[in-house]
Amino acid sequence: MAQIDTPALLVDLDALQRNMDAVHGRILAAGLRIRAHGKAHKCPPIALLQIAGGAHGICCQKLGEAEVFASWGIHDVLVTNQLVGEAKAERAARLAGRVRLAVCADDPAQVEALAAAAARHGTCIEVLVELEVGQGRCGVAGPDAAVSLARLIAGHGPALRFGGLHAYRGSAQHLREPAARQKAVEEACARVREAVAALTAAGLPCDTITGGGTGSYAYELASGLYTEVQPGSYVLMDVDYAANQPEPGAATLAHALQGLCTVISAQEGRAVLDGGLKAFAVDSGLPRVLAPGWKVASVSDEHTVLVPDPAAPETPQPLAVGQRLRVLPGHCDPTVNLHDWLVAIRGEQVEAVWPVAARGALF
Amino acid sequence: MAQIDTPALLVDLDALQRNMDAVHGRILAAGLRIRAHGKAHKCPPIALLQIAGGAHGICCQKLGEAEVFASWGIHDVLVTNQLVGEAKAERAARLAGRVRLAVCADDPAQVEALAAAAARHGTCIEVLVELEVGQGRCGVAGPDAAVSLARLIAGHGPALRFGGLHAYRGSAQHLREPAARQKAVEEACARVREAVAALTAAGLPCDTITGGGTGSYAYELASGLYTEVQPGSYVLMDVDYAANQPEPGAATLAHALQGLCTVISAQEGRAVLDGGLKAFAVDSGLPRVLAPGWKVASVSDEHTVLVPDPAAPETPQPLAVGQRLRVLPGHCDPTVNLHDWLVAIRGEQVEAVWPVAARGALF
Repeated sequence: MAQIDTPALLVDLDALQRNMDAVHGRILAAGLRIRAHGKAHKCPPIALLQIAGGAHGICCQKLGEAEVFASWGIHDVLVTNQLVGEAKAERAARLAGRVRLAVCADDPAQVEALAAAAARHGTCIEVLVELEVGQGRCGVAGPDAAVSLARLIAGHGPALRFGGLHAYRGSAQHLREPAARQKAVEEACARVREAVAALTAAGLPCDTITGGGTGSYAYELASGLYTEVQPGSYVLMDVDYAANQPEPGAATLAHALQGLCTVISAQEGRAVLDGGLKAFAVDSGLPRVLAPGWKVASVSDEHTVLVPDPAAPETPQPLAVGQRLRVLPGHCDPTVNLHDWLVAIRGEQVEAVWPVAARGALF
Repeated sequence: MAQIDTPALLVDLDALQRNMDAVHGRILAAGLRIRAHGKAHKCPPIALLQIAGGAHGICCQKLGEAEVFASWGIHDVLVTNQLVGEAKAERAARLAGRVRLAVCADDPAQVEALAAAAARHGTCIEVLVELEVGQGRCGVAGPDAAVSLARLIAGHGPALRFGGLHAYRGSAQHLREPAARQKAVEEACARVREAVAALTAAGLPCDTITGGGTGSYAYELASGLYTEVQPGSYVLMDVDYAANQPEPGAATLAHALQGLCTVISAQEGRAVLDGGLKAFAVDSGLPRVLAPGWKVASVSDEHTVLVPDPAAPETPQPLAVGQRLRVLPGHCDPTVNLHDWLVAIRGEQVEAVWPVAARGALF
């Protein structure tokens, strides 16, 4: 540990395993498939652990991420996003020759491009219709549009295969009260039920209904409707998710992801760490420092300023230049994306250094 | 242009040149040195243009950035930050054998480690005392501490050389009113003046007094105190800096940095772009979309949602899947750090693809 230069991102392997055991156990017991979201960690060794721990496959948000996971031997990948344009359709068609690839669509233009490319390559891409379920982002508006798009997809067999529905309500994940998350998922489920009924009536059955995340998956499990869930952050955790009140009976997930920083300046009443917003993403709030009595006052590009926390029960011990402290990132996904490596530790021992191989895979 | 996959970051070379001409012309006319801040772009080809355009050297915030700039032939580099720990002192001492290297210090521990390493390598590191001038971050508190640390540095010759003061008030850069920025800089200058007087009286003259940024450099120029200024964002610009009211007579800087995105979903009343907060940093506000009548409603990891802007004078034209739009990032520095490449364009022609070679240089 002493030889790790800072700022670095640590992954506590025992905590990661506990998080996997808790979440995977629950999903598998409910009889659903786990499609672990690789966008949270972008790290193939973690994806492989998730699959070894019962995940059916991986999902991700970018085709470039899917290509990276495929190159590490992951054979079942869902891109939970729309692929647009000739270049991406071409790459998707090639990738479908190597792995079981599914993607989402909400517009005929996406479907036509994928169909043409897959036909050229003689491969088959599974396409899920994305249904808007309250996220206000991508997705067709309702049952009629879902049927119409699913029919277009099914008509492009064998290049395309209609796989079912992608129905993700990201905004449900961070509602702090379990009852609010439950209500949001139930609203989403009502829309999914309508669409499934219309698709079934049209002779277009849904093999897969996929969605849910770390904050809400318990309610997708309970719905009796989803066939798989897509938790991602559960394996690493962050301050934002930790602010969620867990649903009754749920295990508290551990902060497997931790930043390691060095105090580079210590002046009267403050100390400064060597990692800022280029090391720890702040889109969902500031990082938290593991130094009793201290709190994060502000973050700039390459600095985090600590000050005594008047609300803390502990008296802050003086911090000295050179001292190393751990911080918990506010939001794990974009934080991991700022780093090239994760340092996998068990206790105080470094067990591995893992590449964030899909970092920056924007395309 | 049509072959650039999205999301991508474009640099408009004509705009970049105009920004350089405007800012460099003003600084050189005032007789100060330009130390262009490489943390804003992390891109050696831009740094080399800045030097060709009159910059004396480059500064950056991380030793790893300095190493990258050095490897591209930049011979004068200031790290505007404290280097802490044996490993970094060792690397700094080596780097000082290849370029003129200056770093900041505000604690004897930093100085001792640098001195020992430079002595081992037979090199000389210039050390500036960082003075706290209202930023509330790093920096010694006042004249006495500055003299004491400068004396320690000077006593370590020839391994170390006391270079002067680093006095940067980052918080002044984004005060919207020019008068507020001027006041903040004048407060900083009062502290600098006291410290310079004490150092001079102690026989420790300051060759260099450095600080200032894109938002405030006009006032550091006017102070008659600073010997060099450190603008960074001026060359690229972003939405946050564009919200500053320019000081009287100053040229308006152009948005040389622009994101290029594709519409991946278009539903009733909204459209979704293929770049989110992993492509455009949101720590200083949302990006702005260049589509008349539309505005950015929200940003998530890989999506930007556009909605009609009721405040816009234009009627929003419908957006279709596949359409490409430009966006202006909220904050240039951490946005560039999310990309591996910058696509340098002139008009609609791609002239070069430049590596963001110091991306992720956290150490």
